[in-house]
Amino acid sequence: MEQKYIDALIGICGKENVFFEKADIGRYLYDETEEYVRPQACEDCLVVRPKTYEEVSEILKWANEVKVPIIPRGGGTGACGAAIPTQPSVIMTMESFRKIIEVDEINMMITCQTGVTLASLNEYLSENVHSLYFPCHPGDEGAHVGGMCIENAGGVRAVKHGIMRNYIKGMKVCLPNGEIVQLGGKLMKNNMGYDLMHLLIGSEGTLAVVLEATLKLYPRLEYTGALVCSFKTTEDAVRSVGEVQKSGIIPLAVEYMDRAISLGTAEHIERTWPMNDEGTVDLLYLVEEATEDGLYETAGTIAEICEANGALNSVIAEDSKQQRNLLDIRSAIYEVYKPIFVDSLDTAVPVANIGDLMREFDAIAEKYGTTTPRFGHVADGNFHNFILMVDGKVPEWADDMRRDIYKAAIKYGGTITAEHGTGKTRKPYMDIQYTPHVIEIMKSIKRAFDPNNILNPGVIIDL
Amino acid sequence: MEQKYIDALIGICGKENVFFEKADIGRYLYDETEEYVRPQACEDCLVVRPKTYEEVSEILKWANEVKVPIIPRGGGTGACGAAIPTQPSVIMTMESFRKIIEVDEINMMITCQTGVTLASLNEYLSENVHSLYFPCHPGDEGAHVGGMCIENAGGVRAVKHGIMRNYIKGMKVCLPNGEIVQLGGKLMKNNMGYDLMHLLIGSEGTLAVVLEATLKLYPRLEYTGALVCSFKTTEDAVRSVGEVQKSGIIPLAVEYMDRAISLGTAEHIERTWPMNDEGTVDLLYLVEEATEDGLYETAGTIAEICEANGALNSVIAEDSKQQRNLLDIRSAIYEVYKPIFVDSLDTAVPVANIGDLMREFDAIAEKYGTTTPRFGHVADGNFHNFILMVDGKVPEWADDMRRDIYKAAIKYGGTITAEHGTGKTRKPYMDIQYTPHVIEIMKSIKRAFDPNNILNPGVIIDL
Repeated sequence: MEQKYIDALIGICGKENVFFEKADIGRYLYDETEEYVRPQACEDCLVVRPKTYEEVSEILKWANEVKVPIIPRGGGTGACGAAIPTQPSVIMTMESFRKIIEVDEINMMITCQTGVTLASLNEYLSENVHSLYFPCHPGDEGAHVGGMCIENAGGVRAVKHGIMRNYIKGMKVCLPNGEIVQLGGKLMKNNMGYDLMHLLIGSEGTLAVVLEATLKLYPRLEYTGALVCSFKTTEDAVRSVGEVQKSGIIPLAVEYMDRAISLGTAEHIERTWPMNDEGTVDLLYLVEEATEDGLYETAGTIAEICEANGALNSVIAEDSKQQRNLLDIRSAIYEVYKPIFVDSLDTAVPVANIGDLMREFDAIAEKYGTTTPRFGHVADGNFHNFILMVDGKVPEWADDMRRDIYKAAIKYGGTITAEHGTGKTRKPYMDIQYTPHVIEIMKSIKRAFDPNNILNPGVIIDL
Repeated sequence: MEQKYIDALIGICGKENVFFEKADIGRYLYDETEEYVRPQACEDCLVVRPKTYEEVSEILKWANEVKVPIIPRGGGTGACGAAIPTQPSVIMTMESFRKIIEVDEINMMITCQTGVTLASLNEYLSENVHSLYFPCHPGDEGAHVGGMCIENAGGVRAVKHGIMRNYIKGMKVCLPNGEIVQLGGKLMKNNMGYDLMHLLIGSEGTLAVVLEATLKLYPRLEYTGALVCSFKTTEDAVRSVGEVQKSGIIPLAVEYMDRAISLGTAEHIERTWPMNDEGTVDLLYLVEEATEDGLYETAGTIAEICEANGALNSVIAEDSKQQRNLLDIRSAIYEVYKPIFVDSLDTAVPVANIGDLMREFDAIAEKYGTTTPRFGHVADGNFHNFILMVDGKVPEWADDMRRDIYKAAIKYGGTITAEHGTGKTRKPYMDIQYTPHVIEIMKSIKRAFDPNNILNPGVIIDL
């Protein structure tokens, strides 16, 4: 990029916070989007690292003058290419904003700066405020709080307390014109005006830059446990999930584990998956209770309900080692399959329609002469299934298969992306889910916030 | 209004569904907004009662052509004048859409048409799906589901499961151009595009007309109980609320009862308030549990925690009659005080700041030589305090006092309206909470949805 841009940013943030050498900017160009899906990053970029909110504001004001794209960057753990620059841009890394501002124990909320990682937030609470915790857990603890807010992150533990939207009570943001405003706060109710905060949640850095977030915390229940129940059919498994919740038990998480995937992953990381009966699907329940007795009672009730709904077997993790084993196998799936898949999809459908969707997945896979292994957050109806490589290459029908799967999700009342986001990789499929008029409204909203289209242009919507 | 409008609407909906005589339209002109606060309704209005979604669509398309305001109307239980026409308008009553479409027990969700009342929704669940219920409870059971969604209703029972925003998973809406779209669905996670559904929640009929809503249900716990704890100071009471929740108990509701208000209300309806110690504030806890033992254990724990935090006394309602007595007194406050107040405000602040806000209320009241009795949803930080009449008249300083209270709420990190909405009555105070640029963004959002400003014009924002 031209020297005048470098000079201007150095003028705002100092030369120690502006990077332009290839060796320095490389690690800011990509996020966690799958290699075969992600766009090629434009390398003609600068990286700026503001240290104060005023500098963020100055950078945005300057960008509006010179009409240069600004890509706000958090932990780089996104999976839809929202942080990948595809034209000459200024990447604004928020990594300096790492302060935990306040834990308010009466309001049961934490306020922290945008660049606090999930790992450091959890560590801080564990060490300083043991009685409260933050249950939300998208897979990668390197995620920044600001990124989790603006991407509306989900993850495994959304069953009991929901996704990021449910935790976010307030955000301090810098609007594209450089104005810093507080939206919401340590508040459970706020009906003044249109709720811009909820519009920003999931807007993927296209409407505002998060500076601070206020998040709900929950009482830490001391005892957490895991159990696995095996089923012959997806339908039995899904029905049991509904019955467990209707009994009044709301688990932290219920994961759908395709038996073949569990066995394959366990073998790969040299562990043993505890189920070896004739089941094809296992459900992994995570539960939390205040007492050890309560935990065993809850786990026992879940096992009973599952067995009444066709479960073949149930195994309760007897100690933390067994529990760790289950979670390690669950966590390793993505990495174990990564070398052989082209894309990991993120559709969701109503829980009651999961059986239909799974059959449709199989039919679509058969059409292309492949399989589509899957795992997912079954109680949310959110599945991640793979489009596999063929002979180490991306098959030419990969995008047709992806499009078929998206259409199937919509057909069953679902969504193309449940938790990963639209970003740059799913934007081309917007018209499968929304009408042209709805897409036009989204464009007008983008223009309302960012008339010069300087903030993360090309993400979610094109103007 | 001109005959041509009447003819056009009769052409769409039939003459039995178009009303223009004063005697017929009178009951559609006002909502529950306080008499001394509400705007004067324009009587030069028509009422149209569509029977199909297509008719709703046709009405909106026609309104865009002839540029006539459409006021969508639900149960008329709003409290911010959002449903009161202040210029010649067509009031579109949604009362014909009374069908409960589906209770999905696996997804634990109900889908119903916009005109289903809260009373009929609760009755339907109680009679047909006893194991599930809908906890949200804004005061008036005549509220329509569509109105509750678009107003983001709150109420007493928001502590455990939240406000309407937390229940709403999907909405079928008619956009101002007449297009009918489904947003969200029976889904816990959806990150495709900007979340227009969450923008519509709380938009008070200015951006779209709700046709159907899909709402989360929760397992019905069979045992509900109430207890009252008395405190000398607001600070003690507030601290105990935080401590109870930190213990892992999340009550259905925690109501702040000014002792003077409780005694006055009880006397007025010929009941007895159980507390007569030297306390000034009582907290009314509502809890639910799956077993009777569990209920008494929970109530006992709450009483212990309150006593450890300065509670003078605790009284657990021993039977349903005692429980009813407490709830009746709580429910009667508004009606008992209605003849003597000008306005009932709706601010909220962070729970930890309630003590400060209460002191500020008292200082402001003193400044105007009055008092400002209050009650509220203490665990949400949401208080309703009265501006009282003087000698049966609205005092000339009423609006100055209102403005002072709004500024106090903002000063302590709060909001001007927590659950009642902006509507027409709080719109003039928007600049206390938001900057001109934020208000401009809201205007642009209104234009994006409704370029001809035909849908509920003058509510929330003026173009």
